[in-house]
Amino acid sequence: MEDCKIIDVHVSVDCVLVGFDGEQFRILLVHQVGKQQEAGGEVNDLKLPGSLIYADEDLDDAAKRVLKELTGLKNIKMTQFRAYGSKDRTSNPKDVKWLERFHRITENRVGRIVTVAYLSLLKIDSRNRQLTATYDACWMPVSDIKELAFDHLQICRDALVHIRHYVENTPSVMFDLLPRKFTVAQLRNLYQLIYGKNVDIRNFHKKIAMMPYVVPLEEKEQGVRHRAARFYKFDRTIYNKQNK
Amino acid sequence: MEDCKIIDVHVSVDCVLVGFDGEQFRILLVHQVGKQQEAGGEVNDLKLPGSLIYADEDLDDAAKRVLKELTGLKNIKMTQFRAYGSKDRTSNPKDVKWLERFHRITENRVGRIVTVAYLSLLKIDSRNRQLTATYDACWMPVSDIKELAFDHLQICRDALVHIRHYVENTPSVMFDLLPRKFTVAQLRNLYQLIYGKNVDIRNFHKKIAMMPYVVPLEEKEQGVRHRAARFYKFDRTIYNKQNK
Repeated sequence: MEDCKIIDVHVSVDCVLVGFDGEQFRILLVHQVGKQQEAGGEVNDLKLPGSLIYADEDLDDAAKRVLKELTGLKNIKMTQFRAYGSKDRTSNPKDVKWLERFHRITENRVGRIVTVAYLSLLKIDSRNRQLTATYDACWMPVSDIKELAFDHLQICRDALVHIRHYVENTPSVMFDLLPRKFTVAQLRNLYQLIYGKNVDIRNFHKKIAMMPYVVPLEEKEQGVRHRAARFYKFDRTIYNKQNK
Repeated sequence: MEDCKIIDVHVSVDCVLVGFDGEQFRILLVHQVGKQQEAGGEVNDLKLPGSLIYADEDLDDAAKRVLKELTGLKNIKMTQFRAYGSKDRTSNPKDVKWLERFHRITENRVGRIVTVAYLSLLKIDSRNRQLTATYDACWMPVSDIKELAFDHLQICRDALVHIRHYVENTPSVMFDLLPRKFTVAQLRNLYQLIYGKNVDIRNFHKKIAMMPYVVPLEEKEQGVRHRAARFYKFDRTIYNKQNK
């Protein structure tokens, strides 16, 4: 006899893709298609790109498949950052109803969903702006994200905290967020966001001087009203040598 | 209709408790009780302390419960480090048969087990040596671990790699592995294990001088044949001040 205490668990993956628009973080979100009509009115239907895994699929493969299906993005390097398994994840009947319909699961069968959350830091460049329209994927500024399906708001918050550890472990990921050519102001904004504190501009220039892999270019900003700032680039060869 | 591609997933937690015996790492393992008799002979029946989660239980709570049930240890601070979900996890029929019997699950119902692995670094002190006998829990030297159930050998390997990142993020966890009073030789052995390289003894003394939270004591080793080494302790107050 199946032990009733342990049945009916579903497993999903959720992808937290974090970009930086020069001023703040943006997170890639999708819509729960059909939820509005189902609820018969205005309800929050934004969520992280995520879905249940297939029986024959590894977690990492599921994350890649789901991201591609829901947003069109592929070849994105993602790393697991945490699994979520509270039974309260499915405490909102609207979310459960949507999920059952979306996955054609018998009603009242979804008791529990354990999700494995993935994180990626990336440039919001032209490639990553080409999102499929099916689920209205969009890069939402973090300050505009007030409510999400399931516990996705908590997952986003945890991801933003985790970024700091991630950058401390692997400083190079910070440059994954910046355009190929960036200004000191952009790097400083990003640094302040990650560490949640203001950094004096002069101290920040000293900090950059300690990073030989942040290389000044001959090129400057063009067509700006303020004094044109110099561009810098991240030199991975120098970085790798230093971190061998 | 239930989508057959997504049913029959079970979720478990597995606890990787890593200790340090002064020379090498040890990992806490338990036996799969009954597996030997079932197989009718000598088979490997060692595994990490882990089990399926209950439907009403959060992952962190499950990890605590399972560790206590299988080893008797409680109040151990564990952190998630990775989820494992390959379908090959259950490719060994001996493991699946044991699991089905252990959890009284209908035969051939276990298609897939996604496990969330937890990590803890701790002292192998008198408290952590008092293990319950039910599952013959033991602290096994890493060099003696040749084969484990499921993919637990891989999980152990990943955990040992992860320790390095963990220590880089939170250097204080290194001292969780050492006795309250330790010698420079012990700290150096541990450091070499974590970073997988030899550190020259003089350079290591310089390194310690840079750690104001490693405080020399008046006390020395006693009853040793070699020259008695001084004891040191980890001062968390100084550490916390420095890392504010």
